[in-house]
Amino acid sequence: MTTITLDQATQVVDAGLRHARELGLNPLTFAVLDAGGHMVVLKREDTSGILRPDIAYGKAWGALGMGHGSRSLAQRAEKAPAFFTALASVSQGRMIPVPGGVLIRNAAGAVLGAVGVSGDMPDNDEACAVYGIESARLVADPGLAH
Amino acid sequence: MTTITLDQATQVVDAGLRHARELGLNPLTFAVLDAGGHMVVLKREDTSGILRPDIAYGKAWGALGMGHGSRSLAQRAEKAPAFFTALASVSQGRMIPVPGGVLIRNAAGAVLGAVGVSGDMPDNDEACAVYGIESARLVADPGLAH
Amino acid sequence: MTTITLDQATQVVDAGLRHARELGLNPLTFAVLDAGGHMVVLKREDTSGILRPDIAYGKAWGALGMGHGSRSLAQRAEKAPAFFTALASVSQGRMIPVPGGVLIRNAAGAVLGAVGVSGDMPDNDEACAVYGIESARLVADPGLAH
Amino acid sequence: MTTITLDQATQVVDAGLRHARELGLNPLTFAVLDAGGHMVVLKREDTSGILRPDIAYGKAWGALGMGHGSRSLAQRAEKAPAFFTALASVSQGRMIPVPGGVLIRNAAGAVLGAVGVSGDMPDNDEACAVYGIESARLVADPGLAH
Repeated sequence: MTTITLDQATQVVDAGLRHARELGLNPLTFAVLDAGGHMVVLKREDTSGILRPDIAYGKAWGALGMGHGSRSLAQRAEKAPAFFTALASVSQGRMIPVPGGVLIRNAAGAVLGAVGVSGDMPDNDEACAVYGIESARLVADPGLAH
Repeated sequence: MTTITLDQATQVVDAGLRHARELGLNPLTFAVLDAGGHMVVLKREDTSGILRPDIAYGKAWGALGMGHGSRSLAQRAEKAPAFFTALASVSQGRMIPVPGGVLIRNAAGAVLGAVGVSGDMPDNDEACAVYGIESARLVADPGLAH
Repeated sequence: MTTITLDQATQVVDAGLRHARELGLNPLTFAVLDAGGHMVVLKREDTSGILRPDIAYGKAWGALGMGHGSRSLAQRAEKAPAFFTALASVSQGRMIPVPGGVLIRNAAGAVLGAVGVSGDMPDNDEACAVYGIESARLVADPGLAH
Repeated sequence: MTTITLDQATQVVDAGLRHARELGLNPLTFAVLDAGGHMVVLKREDTSGILRPDIAYGKAWGALGMGHGSRSLAQRAEKAPAFFTALASVSQGRMIPVPGGVLIRNAAGAVLGAVGVSGDMPDNDEACAVYGIESARLVADPGLAH
């Protein structure tokens, strides 16, 4: 299998949402994209801000766009601000270099898609993304800090 | 309550998807927007085309934009082509005047949001949207033909 | 005076809204622009559709853009559809060739701005725009049919 | 009621404008948006700059987009410049992280909409926004400094 299915994407989001409620986080928005960057599932919790769907989508899309989880992109953005300013434009707003955009891989390491989460502190957004992916028995790649 | 909740939106989509499978339709994409036009739930069935999320979103957004279900908009578009060409531009692509964009009302008649469905013939898209809304015990307004 | 003032624009909109209520029209949206096409006053009645501000703005802006009230533009659009398809693009969505976009002139004939109204049938939108302008003791130019 | 009405929005703007005149501020522009980010009332004082409507709109929309008043967003923007560069793009220019974008809440704490003010120093813009909201007997949330 080379792209995430609707069933898998639904498991990722629903598990991530349950985890968010367990942690008592702010209302969150989750977006799961397939390997081509196209939306498969989106869910926005009640009162989650109206820009959150685009931010969640941008965290996931940017990770797929560069081939690295957004935690890595956040690190790079600090060192190469001009590059990331340009990326904001060339990606048409689909590049959000902040933790919370996590690549989804299968056991063989192939990228099946990505999930983006927005609404709380970035570390918490990322934690829910990782929890959701692992609940679906897939491999989470948030872009490890080196 | 004057805007659709995540729970209600999830019921609408999941029921609509079940109905689509019962009818043996093409893979579908469902988008439920709140009363302000912002995405609450999106689900795209496996192999549903990559433009379908935008079409589903546009059917729902256009209905909210004009205050009429997309079946009515389809009728108007036939009579007023210049107006709808202009609307395609002013709405930034969020106006799809084809059946399948259905307003969601509560028992008091207030608009809670809208659902857009894309992937099969428009009449079938609309039928699944209506089924989903009614399964969530809300009122479907597809824009009746006059 | 060569551009409409906030006080005048407010009179136009408030009188137009009163007239709409007297006529029992659908909820309306009014936008008054100055001679440079920039918004001076906008008011959207409760439950008026979420695209109505852009449509009202586009009716007014398009009239200023071409120097003719939108009733004239509607006539032209029927005869020159390719031109108006192009105008939808070049104006970036600020050209709505449907009645309801009315130029505002002073007694000397100078254009002070324009008002755009959206929400009911175009003839009614236009009637409220004209009523508002005349209540402010200015001259309404809706683009007369020739 | 969970979204601001035209009457309330008009009270907010008119009171804010009176306050601005009492304080002898530069000409201001006020934009009140509903909970979905759509314009309800806009007023631009004579000679207020032609970009001010978009700035006022962006201050309000950005606050709704993130769920925080723009004073908080201004603080965050200093600490997370790459994130806000990305947000400027993903929000399509509807994110102005400068004081003057104030969320409007009801007594129960629900967000009814937001007001954005532009034209003087940001602290003064914000003061007029807060004054207007409180004159309408609603609760102002400018995004408190922590």
